[in-house]
Amino acid sequence: MTSQHSNAAQREQLAILTTFRRVPPLAVGHVRELRVRWALEEAGRPYQVRLIGSEDQQSPAYRQLQPFGQIPVYEENGLTLFESGAILLQIAERSTALMPTDEAGRASTKAWMFAALNTIEPHVLNLDDLDFFSAGEEWAAQRRPALEARVSKRLAELDNWLKDREYLAGQFTAADILMTTVLRALQHTDLVAQHPALHAYHRRCSARPAFAKALADHMALYDPSGQ
Amino acid sequence: MTSQHSNAAQREQLAILTTFRRVPPLAVGHVRELRVRWALEEAGRPYQVRLIGSEDQQSPAYRQLQPFGQIPVYEENGLTLFESGAILLQIAERSTALMPTDEAGRASTKAWMFAALNTIEPHVLNLDDLDFFSAGEEWAAQRRPALEARVSKRLAELDNWLKDREYLAGQFTAADILMTTVLRALQHTDLVAQHPALHAYHRRCSARPAFAKALADHMALYDPSGQ
Repeated sequence: MTSQHSNAAQREQLAILTTFRRVPPLAVGHVRELRVRWALEEAGRPYQVRLIGSEDQQSPAYRQLQPFGQIPVYEENGLTLFESGAILLQIAERSTALMPTDEAGRASTKAWMFAALNTIEPHVLNLDDLDFFSAGEEWAAQRRPALEARVSKRLAELDNWLKDREYLAGQFTAADILMTTVLRALQHTDLVAQHPALHAYHRRCSARPAFAKALADHMALYDPSGQ
Repeated sequence: MTSQHSNAAQREQLAILTTFRRVPPLAVGHVRELRVRWALEEAGRPYQVRLIGSEDQQSPAYRQLQPFGQIPVYEENGLTLFESGAILLQIAERSTALMPTDEAGRASTKAWMFAALNTIEPHVLNLDDLDFFSAGEEWAAQRRPALEARVSKRLAELDNWLKDREYLAGQFTAADILMTTVLRALQHTDLVAQHPALHAYHRRCSARPAFAKALADHMALYDPSGQ
């Protein structure tokens, strides 16, 4: 095998992250591709980025990869996945940096991955949705207290869990990546800061060099002027 | 080892599903423990049920098993898991009845498990929440069209995916259990019936004997009078 062939083979093994070429200003810093970048940085896994536009998003070919036209899509070694949770699971199952090796630790990591996406994120996104897209509407003023109360209840429960733990599943895992990026969507509120253990946890996760690198790459794509 | 010991060892290996002793009438037929029962029936895995009350739900000991005080909790071979998605993943990873053996099929199953819980369920539950708990409120009339439109958009995309497929990931998997139980929460509407492929899919999954058995056991617990 010539070195050219070997390079080509190596290039084929590179993971590919598909994401949007452009996103609305409000979404910058919050697009779900950020989670995947962070996981790949923690795992020390190089990757390339494939950019799509809205015309690709609607195409039947893209819908075969991502039935809802969303991003990210992730490809490695001939496997294609959608859903950021499934992508992080795929990466984490192959990296001790993102999932412990013992069965109990792996089970706990998976439970917390689903908890971040199914028990916490829906409430967070409902509040975000109201604050960013419906703040001026009549119904929003009536509805907001109930939506905020639901978020606060979950955050208090999370805070309680984190009182004597550094990370959700003991050591740092893919679940912390999901939870941290979910909590980032509350940056326009002081809800996280109201809970000392949760607040410290959020800062601890956000201070990781792999997150800084992922966020810088994310911002370089979507907001080059803000660098 | 005597046969008595052997029976005891066997009993210790039985999976344990923890669920509520009682639930509100509106929740009967929809509690997330139903998903776990269905998965265990498909996998041919016997289990025992442990019932808890609201006093257990608040206890620090239960919060160590389930940080949000929810059900189901699942135990097998010394492992304890919460989050219905993580529990189904745990069961499915050990049963070819719930997950294919090839890597691509396994990746697709996991992607669709997360899609059911993170892309479809939040929108479905927002509509449910409004219809069952806030229908009389002033804001609800203003908000409902937008929430229904979000559900309809996702259902149309699902319908499109299912036009030439029997099941989400090719063969029947744990993802179909999650999706079917998510769609059940729209039973008070005709939204699923508006999409022929999705409607046929929903009926196909709901007609499985393992679902009938799981539902019967669920109903026997929560609504013995309705049997």
